[in-house]
Amino acid sequence: MFKKVLIANRGEIAVRIIRACREMGILTVAVYSEIDKEALHTQLADEAICIGPASAKDSYLNITNILSACVLTGADAIHPGFGFLSENSKFAKMCKECNIKFIGPDYESIELMGDKARAREIMKKAKVPVVPGYEGNIKNESHALDIAQKIGYPIMIKAAAGGGGKGIRVARNDEEFLMGYKTAKSESKACFGDDRLYIEKFIENPRHIEFQILGDEFGNVIHLGERECSLQRKNQKVLEEAPSNVLNEEMRFKMGEIAKEAAKAVNYKNAGTIEFLFDKNNNFYFMEMNTRIQVEHPITEMITGVDLVKEQLKIASGEKLSLNQEDIKIKGHAIECRVNAEDPDNDFRPCPGTIDELCLPGGMGVRIDSAIFGGYKIPYCYDSMIAKLITFGKDRDEAIVKMKRALGEFAVGGVKTNIDFQLSILEMEEFLKGEYDTSFLSEKMVKNNA
Amino acid sequence: MFKKVLIANRGEIAVRIIRACREMGILTVAVYSEIDKEALHTQLADEAICIGPASAKDSYLNITNILSACVLTGADAIHPGFGFLSENSKFAKMCKECNIKFIGPDYESIELMGDKARAREIMKKAKVPVVPGYEGNIKNESHALDIAQKIGYPIMIKAAAGGGGKGIRVARNDEEFLMGYKTAKSESKACFGDDRLYIEKFIENPRHIEFQILGDEFGNVIHLGERECSLQRKNQKVLEEAPSNVLNEEMRFKMGEIAKEAAKAVNYKNAGTIEFLFDKNNNFYFMEMNTRIQVEHPITEMITGVDLVKEQLKIASGEKLSLNQEDIKIKGHAIECRVNAEDPDNDFRPCPGTIDELCLPGGMGVRIDSAIFGGYKIPYCYDSMIAKLITFGKDRDEAIVKMKRALGEFAVGGVKTNIDFQLSILEMEEFLKGEYDTSFLSEKMVKNNA
Repeated sequence: MFKKVLIANRGEIAVRIIRACREMGILTVAVYSEIDKEALHTQLADEAICIGPASAKDSYLNITNILSACVLTGADAIHPGFGFLSENSKFAKMCKECNIKFIGPDYESIELMGDKARAREIMKKAKVPVVPGYEGNIKNESHALDIAQKIGYPIMIKAAAGGGGKGIRVARNDEEFLMGYKTAKSESKACFGDDRLYIEKFIENPRHIEFQILGDEFGNVIHLGERECSLQRKNQKVLEEAPSNVLNEEMRFKMGEIAKEAAKAVNYKNAGTIEFLFDKNNNFYFMEMNTRIQVEHPITEMITGVDLVKEQLKIASGEKLSLNQEDIKIKGHAIECRVNAEDPDNDFRPCPGTIDELCLPGGMGVRIDSAIFGGYKIPYCYDSMIAKLITFGKDRDEAIVKMKRALGEFAVGGVKTNIDFQLSILEMEEFLKGEYDTSFLSEKMVKNNA
Repeated sequence: MFKKVLIANRGEIAVRIIRACREMGILTVAVYSEIDKEALHTQLADEAICIGPASAKDSYLNITNILSACVLTGADAIHPGFGFLSENSKFAKMCKECNIKFIGPDYESIELMGDKARAREIMKKAKVPVVPGYEGNIKNESHALDIAQKIGYPIMIKAAAGGGGKGIRVARNDEEFLMGYKTAKSESKACFGDDRLYIEKFIENPRHIEFQILGDEFGNVIHLGERECSLQRKNQKVLEEAPSNVLNEEMRFKMGEIAKEAAKAVNYKNAGTIEFLFDKNNNFYFMEMNTRIQVEHPITEMITGVDLVKEQLKIASGEKLSLNQEDIKIKGHAIECRVNAEDPDNDFRPCPGTIDELCLPGGMGVRIDSAIFGGYKIPYCYDSMIAKLITFGKDRDEAIVKMKRALGEFAVGGVKTNIDFQLSILEMEEFLKGEYDTSFLSEKMVKNNA
């Protein structure tokens, strides 16, 4: 096992990793930006090194400084957390070249999964379902119509060179298709100087369901069940739960096996997540793989009893997975609410500032992963998530009731937070019934504002 | 189920009860003394009523004021917590007379178990082992010697009318016995005006092992395993763990069955605890029954998954126990450290004051039951316990490692606490091996001071 691990991150995930290391007897090195001198991760680690000014590009994204800190402190491994450099294959590669163990997959896996087109290709080869689409060249309008009809409506037309939502059209019949084809083509040309289009099935109001994967360096891969992450606001997850109430044992088994195949197809090592789009007819499609630990990993820990960060450390140090698929028993239900310092009344604009009052919830079935304390000054320059509140109950109803109770106790003074917004979600009938998809929150909010 | 429950207590146990009520949809009424106006239980409850000045006898022990608050707010039940009026049979009886449900056993059970001599008698009848002793009249010295020899050394001579440690002698042979008999007799006469003595077996350095009991109003009784509470300082528990590492399945079954018999013998309803002395030869003896929820109940909750306060509420409202003995599965290991505002360097003298800095530990396997927050002023007039830190692990080693990690993160500024003292216990070799009894802590501390 490693003797000393450097944590190339900040905030609650840095604290989370320090906790795992400490419980395993591993020394920790925190890196911090100038503004994070008093941050909890800086205080809790065995050693702490300043790696630059507040701006992330000068500190938490500064590869040279981080590697120097590692060499300087004699750390034998780096845990990247999530965000920042966690999915930067160049960083992972440089770690390897410096003989520092990157706690995550090989840089090749990161690179492969980071290239969405190549990932899609590999997944298709591995018989992992991807959103049906036409990958060849579209010759002309009638050829395009033929493709659309074969895929079946609704379909989505996308600029092949596109991004940022430009050159995208949804069509539900031939007429809409022909119209959309023309406008997408001209928009593509205008925006990207390239009028090539790409046609794929449009998945209507899908759920976002992801599977947690662990793979060791000997080719063993297991999954730890799924997380339901459909409650999103502008593609940002807001509240996650596990297990998903739309999967039965059969579906869980099926998707879990496919998730493992997806991981194996890129020779995946360490913790990772296979994200699926899940439609109303129980079809599911590979969306992408996150090649790192995720924000919402605690809900999987609550229902499986497996400490995922400790597993990451064990795998990275060369240990064989001590768990078989049969060892993974899902028990109870867990929910995570992301508590953000933001203003729900002002389009959720981040609200940095000083926490001048703080009362954290506690009691049975409540877990808090955070890096805040009374008097803590939330910096302006990083993510607005300040705490993760996780509840566990024997079933979904109990986890919800506990979350409502715990959010009700959670008092933060000095900055605005989304605590009341989270509470309002827990009151929504559709949420209580488990009837929601990725479009739910934004539609609900539009309605409420109308 | 009750609509509104008044909580006749303060501090963390009041908060604990509010949490259970809230999760069950029951409204709560807090009562508070003048000094507890800003206390967390006062803030968290749905309603709060001042019941008198700071001194407990004028507020938390003021039966009239508490019953008036109950009538005034229309609460249909009172939860007494622990301490204060929780084992006051007169209070329980008055609740009944006022048609307010006392959340606990019948007042008759409280009364019976509160009378140590009667409790002993009942236990003997129910074939619950009690410390062997002679209950008849001792005629003279030679009769006394005969009794002592029959019981077998070491034996303890006690003033029958005694208390407070007066008139107590331990004898390990005939010579010591005859000497002790004489001095105890004269001391008894001098202190209590009554020279009758009582002779019983002296249990040397026993462990304190207690069983959690739940009984409903239909005569069903189950136990939820044991708690190891031998780590004590001046008869105050300091750190508790569950399960005990000296009980195997067979002993657990045997003691558990006897604990249930003990509860049945007094027609026990609601949550209670049967405390046993446990000697080096695996003999165990009924010590007393606590007819209330206990401070250390969370460790039982962690290893069984049963919310004991919710069970109390359900039982009191007339529900049948939903759990059979076979439903109780003990899983993992839990430890509780009592965090007290006290000064270990000054004979653990209470240290009231204002908490001007607070960082609570969190993460996987950590539970906090407390009523503190940054800026909270710990009053001078109540118990010094300010928080209970509970950790859960798959086994004892993991629970210990988590506790060390969590205590290490627990930062309290403004008042002295026993956090470092708790950490020092977790470093002791005997503790790590699980080799300790009720005398361990005081002996260790005498040695360290020598």
